[in-house]
This record gives sequence, C-alpha cells and structure tokens, in this order.
Amino acid sequence: MNKNRLEAFSDGVLAIIITIMVLEIKVPHGAELNVLAPLLPVFLSYVLSFVYVGIYWNNHHHMLHTVGKVSGGILWANLHLLFWLSLFPVATGWMGENHFAPVPSAMYGFVLFMAAIAYWILQLTIIRSQGDDSLLARAIGKDYKGRASPFLYALSIPAAFVSSWLSGILFVIVALMWLVPDRRIESVGQTH
Amino acid sequence: MNKNRLEAFSDGVLAIIITIMVLEIKVPHGAELNVLAPLLPVFLSYVLSFVYVGIYWNNHHHMLHTVGKVSGGILWANLHLLFWLSLFPVATGWMGENHFAPVPSAMYGFVLFMAAIAYWILQLTIIRSQGDDSLLARAIGKDYKGRASPFLYALSIPAAFVSSWLSGILFVIVALMWLVPDRRIESVGQTH
Amino acid sequence: MNKNRLEAFSDGVLAIIITIMVLEIKVPHGAELNVLAPLLPVFLSYVLSFVYVGIYWNNHHHMLHTVGKVSGGILWANLHLLFWLSLFPVATGWMGENHFAPVPSAMYGFVLFMAAIAYWILQLTIIRSQGDDSLLARAIGKDYKGRASPFLYALSIPAAFVSSWLSGILFVIVALMWLVPDRRIESVGQTH
Amino acid sequence: MNKNRLEAFSDGVLAIIITIMVLEIKVPHGAELNVLAPLLPVFLSYVLSFVYVGIYWNNHHHMLHTVGKVSGGILWANLHLLFWLSLFPVATGWMGENHFAPVPSAMYGFVLFMAAIAYWILQLTIIRSQGDDSLLARAIGKDYKGRASPFLYALSIPAAFVSSWLSGILFVIVALMWLVPDRRIESVGQTH
Repeated sequence: MNKNRLEAFSDGVLAIIITIMVLEIKVPHGAELNVLAPLLPVFLSYVLSFVYVGIYWNNHHHMLHTVGKVSGGILWANLHLLFWLSLFPVATGWMGENHFAPVPSAMYGFVLFMAAIAYWILQLTIIRSQGDDSLLARAIGKDYKGRASPFLYALSIPAAFVSSWLSGILFVIVALMWLVPDRRIESVGQTH
Repeated sequence: MNKNRLEAFSDGVLAIIITIMVLEIKVPHGAELNVLAPLLPVFLSYVLSFVYVGIYWNNHHHMLHTVGKVSGGILWANLHLLFWLSLFPVATGWMGENHFAPVPSAMYGFVLFMAAIAYWILQLTIIRSQGDDSLLARAIGKDYKGRASPFLYALSIPAAFVSSWLSGILFVIVALMWLVPDRRIESVGQTH
Repeated sequence: MNKNRLEAFSDGVLAIIITIMVLEIKVPHGAELNVLAPLLPVFLSYVLSFVYVGIYWNNHHHMLHTVGKVSGGILWANLHLLFWLSLFPVATGWMGENHFAPVPSAMYGFVLFMAAIAYWILQLTIIRSQGDDSLLARAIGKDYKGRASPFLYALSIPAAFVSSWLSGILFVIVALMWLVPDRRIESVGQTH
Repeated sequence: MNKNRLEAFSDGVLAIIITIMVLEIKVPHGAELNVLAPLLPVFLSYVLSFVYVGIYWNNHHHMLHTVGKVSGGILWANLHLLFWLSLFPVATGWMGENHFAPVPSAMYGFVLFMAAIAYWILQLTIIRSQGDDSLLARAIGKDYKGRASPFLYALSIPAAFVSSWLSGILFVIVALMWLVPDRRIESVGQTH
C-alpha cells in the first residue's frame, strides 16, 4: 500500500463529507425571506463543520507528508479517523435543526472529541512506525494544540447543558486555534 | 502542501457539487407527461448551475496552472470559494422549486455574487504570493470579465424583485460571457 | 488543461452518478420479504443503468486514450456528455418506480439517446482536433456500434408506447452490444 | 486501460459508498437523548458496514497490486464487485431500521455473500490473466479466508431466521477474520 492511495482515498471521503453536509440544509418550502429564518442555525452549524473538515484536511496532509511506508496499523487508524469524521453531517444536522439545544450540542461535542482522539491515535501510530528519529514527532514538538483540542471538546459536552453559547464559543475557539496552518510540520516537511 | 492535492480535492468537491445538484430534481409521482411540467423550472435552474460549475472548474484549472507553491493563504482562499460553490445545489433547488420567484432568485444571485468575490480573493491571494512578476497577473491582464461578473451578479439581486426574467437574463449573460475559455491564461500557461 | 485532469474529473462524476443511482432504491418500510416486491422494477432499472454507466466509463477511457491536448471544445463536449449522464439517476428512478410505464420508459430512452448524441459529438470534436491522420478516426473505423446506438435509442421512444417489453428489449440489446469492450480502439491504442 | 484508472475509479466508488451509508442515519426529530435510542441499531449496522467496506478497500488494493495490464474481463469483474458493494447502504439501512429482523438480516447476509462471490470471481479473473506463474495465485496460497467468507455469509442467511444474534455474530466473525491485513499478498507484493 503506498501513501498516494491512502491520501487519495482520504481526500475522496473528506470531499464527500464536506459536500453532503450541505444536504442537511433542506430546500425550504415557500418563497419568502422569512422561511430562511429557521435555516439560520442549520447554516451556522454548516459553516462551523465546513471549517472543521477543512482544518482536518489541511492537518491530515501535513501529517501524512512525513509518512514513508503505510502499515496496516496506519491504514486502520486512518479509517477510524474517517469514521468519526463521517458522523459530522448527521451531528451537524441534528444540532442545527434543534437550534443548538443542549443534547444535540453535547453530542456534536462528543463527535468532535472522538475525531480528535482518532487523530491523536493516528499521529501516535505514525510516530511509532517511524522509530526513534520520527520526523513527525520532531515536527509536532510539544503539540500544545493537539493536546488542548480533545480537552476543550470534552469540556464542551457538560458546557452544552449550562448554555448553548458556552459550548458554541468552545467550538469556535478550537476552530480559530487550528485555522493557523501547522507551520511546525510545514517547515520540517520542506527539508524533506 | 503541493498543488496536485489542492487540485484533486477541489476537483472532487466540484464533481460532487455538480452531481448532487441533480438530486434536487426529485423523481416525480405519477407516470404521465404532465407531472414533468412543474419540474421544468427545476430543470432549467439545474442546466444553468451545471454550466456555472463547469465554468468555475475550467477557470479554476487555468488559474491554478500558474501556481507554484501552495501557501496556507491560497489553501483557505480556495476552501472559501468551495464553500460558496457548495451552496449552489440548495440555492438552485430553492429557485427552481419556486419557479424563479423574486426572493429565491435574489438569493441565487447573492450566492453567485459571493462565489465570484471568493474567486476574486483567491486570484488576488495567488497574485500576491507570486510577487511583482506574477504569471497570473500578466495572464488576466485588465480582467474585464472578472470585474464585470460580481457587478452583474450584484445587479441581479435587485433585478429579481423587478422581474424574474431580468435576473434570469443577467445570469445567462454572465454564463455566456465565461463560456469562452479564458484564452489569456491558456496562452501564457502554454509558455510555462 | 492536461488530459489527466479531464479524466480524473470525469471519473469522479461517473463514480458519483453510478453510486447515487442506488439512492433511488429507497429503504423499504416493513421487515417482510413481500415489501421487496415493488422494489424489483427499481432494482432492475438500477442494474440496467449501472451497466450503461460502466459501458460509458469504459468507452470514455478508450476514446480519451487517443487524445493529446485538451482543447476548450473537447472540454465542453465532455461536460455536455456528463450533463446527460447526470440525468440517469432521476430517469432510472422514474422508470423504475412506475414499473416501466410508457412515458417514463420513453423518457429514459430519450435521456439515453441524448447521451449517445453527446458521446458522438465528443468523438467528432476529438477527431477534428486531431486533424487528417486522426488516431481516433482510424480506431473507430466504420463505427457501426456508435451509429446504431442513437438509432436504437430513438426507436425505443415510440416503442415504449407500444409495449414496455419492446423498449426494455431495445435497452438490453444496446447494452449487450457494447458490453464487448471496444477492441478497435484498444488495439490501436496499444501501438500508441 | 491502465491500472491506475481502475484503482482511482474503484477508490472513488468505495469512498462514496462508505460516505453515503451515513445518510441512512437520518437526523432524528426531537432534541432529547431518548430519540437516539431507535438509532442505535442503525448506528451499529453502519459501524459493521463501514468496517466491511474498509476491509474490501484494503484487500482490493493488495489484489490489484499484483496486476499488470487490465483486460476487459478484469474491468467488468471489478464493476461487478462494485455493483454488489453499492447495495451495502440500502441493505445496511434496511437491517438497521428494522432492528436486525430476520428477513432484512438474511438479505444483508445475501448481499455480503454476493460481494464475496464477486470478489472471488475478480481474483480468479486476475489469476487466469497472469498465466501459470501468477503472482496473485502464489500470494493467496490456499486462500483459507477467501474460501471461508462466502461459506460463512451463506450460513448467515438461514441463521438470521433462527436468531438475529446468530447471524450478527457470523457477520462480526468474518469482519474480525479479515481485519488482519492480508500479509501474504503484502509480502509477495514487496518483492514486486
């Protein structure tokens, strides 16, 4: 199994996830502007999830850039990540249609949390496969962002029951934190 | 991040957008020819949006042809463009199902306008990354079409409230204007 | 625009068309075997269309194999073909859900006919771009199959009003005719 | 037809199948935790099918790794496999929505069985095309797993009428059996 196939397959799945999420924005009945009002939370959830999938796609590439040979472990760790990402459309739709109600928001946080854990497992699997002088391990360094994300997602789950605004703000904070591309890997990758 | 990945991902998203738009043409109930009549505006909107996505795909390629290294800015400007293009199916469906009623037509014009702005931002981001002797800047020259498009789309929004025909004609004019492939970039690209 | 991008984009669209067609087979309500009975015509239409898209994918590859440079004309002739192929899912669903009733069967024949015409236009566009010594022109030779297909599809439209069986048999005949891969192009292509 | 196109097309179809399966998990109505309860069997079926498609994708790659030239026979045997895999979403949805009732579970087993047979036909077609010293034939050796799978799937069909648990356990056993990547082909492939 060479890396290109893994990248192409992951790209395909991510491209489909990012696009079918829009199918949750159902064509409204009626031709007046006010029929769009109930779609606003659905639209906002879509924007948030679109940014998240964009971040995953971006970081996923930088991470795979450091991989040489794809082992069975990497392959399944990657499919595990894609599994949780594939739940983004339904979690996004549920949160949006219920206007950020507590349970759907907590569930959205849970899916984000599991995806972050899956990403972390994939990262660990790659580092282990690279041995002591792992290019990826050097690239991510202390990995503050990677450690903070699952923590903040986990926090968003109880936060959703306190206030939708609180969990929403946590979601946006993590997104903003990652929007800056991971220059650490980028710079190491360039010497590759 | 190399250019091929960006192109492949964008191709994937565009291929999915162009194909899921057809899902807005719901299988009609009944087996008579007259059940197709209410589908006609849905079909016409589909044709229009199909041509638009085809134009974006075509021009997107010519533009990326001039790019060497993909920066984080280009990557996110590209995702921003894909975001607005991903709203084509729902905007198309809303306009079609309401037989080109004013508000849905204006909203369709708005989505087209935002996509044109996003395209323009991506173009600018690429030109800036290329420095003073930008291949893309030379290729697009005065960029009459690129400047006229968002203007005409913006015009289509109030026009939709005057008459559906007026906004429709504006949509068709922009499409026809772009159907001619961008020979400027093509010719510069060939010397590349 | 190089050929690989055109092939990759067409592959993506065809892969999505062939897969979303299955969405027309709605998950039935009820857990008994008899709820599958009304799905049988939907399933049969799916099989037929799956084979057709497979044939188009196969022949499309052999045809593009002979192409060097992609002109704007080839690009739009290709998008025109993809447009008619994108209508396969809805035409298939309409025919299947109405158990091969006359009008939906005739409409299915019409979409097949238009796709065949679009294929023929694409072929002509490629041959013209290749000049007098066209590799594709030599490869297809007399092109009996390519000439017979639109004729048989056109015939299937009135035939559907005589009997669903008649149009169905015509659909199956054309499919069988093409299932044999186009060895003419294959053999010329190999010397390429 | 070169192998890369076949791989890319198969990857595309598999990526779409694995992603549209998630569309069977409909966004629930209501914002309480208890509305998720009826979705649990749908979710479990999704997990199972996701793992299956992952296994097919993995083994498919290892198998194609041994292929040199793609013949018409290989191409159609591959499309035949993709056909049965494309029925996974609807079979998964039917089983999940009916909480593993006998008939839908048996039907799921039947689709798995047909996919396994299609995989076996593709394998045979490749081996035959490679002649006496087939790389794939040496790689799979006795092919215990490949022989056991269709047998166990066939067994799951009557088992579903005895108990949903019995067929469910059979499905899980085959999945676990294959989760270990096919090291036989991998090792031969490496010498390639």
